[in-house]
Amino acid sequence: MAKIIVEVALKPEILDPQGQAVASALPRLGFTFATSVRQGKRFEIEVAGEVTPAMLADIEQAAQTLLSNPVIETYVVKVEA
Amino acid sequence: MAKIIVEVALKPEILDPQGQAVASALPRLGFTFATSVRQGKRFEIEVAGEVTPAMLADIEQAAQTLLSNPVIETYVVKVEA
Repeated sequence: MAKIIVEVALKPEILDPQGQAVASALPRLGFTFATSVRQGKRFEIEVAGEVTPAMLADIEQAAQTLLSNPVIETYVVKVEA
Repeated sequence: MAKIIVEVALKPEILDPQGQAVASALPRLGFTFATSVRQGKRFEIEVAGEVTPAMLADIEQAAQTLLSNPVIETYVVKVEA
């Protein structure tokens, strides 16, 4: 059983109101470390058996069509041990 | 300028309707690789200067109080190069 991680983030030029809300809440709580916060999504996908190149191509396809909106988001596919 | 990643995920025993929606949408789109999908959040935090142990302790604290709900979620803090 392998685990695939798909990380989806807004493109840098796209406004991120959730991230901005976090960035402005941090100093109110006394945390001054952040210069910028961006919020994204993370999908943990469990797959049966070995990760094959064909499966990875399928996952890329799913990341592009279902998990992210390629107009405003980018994604990264990672295979976990 | 360093980048800190905070990954927030629902605890395994907590129901994840978003993940379930993705898991049931995948086969409808012809993707049969997934046995389970869990959806979480990901925060990219840019910090000025070096990452110090005191700053990391602050970030842990912020992850616990603002970025995650410790009753139902777990978090991981990662430092990116």
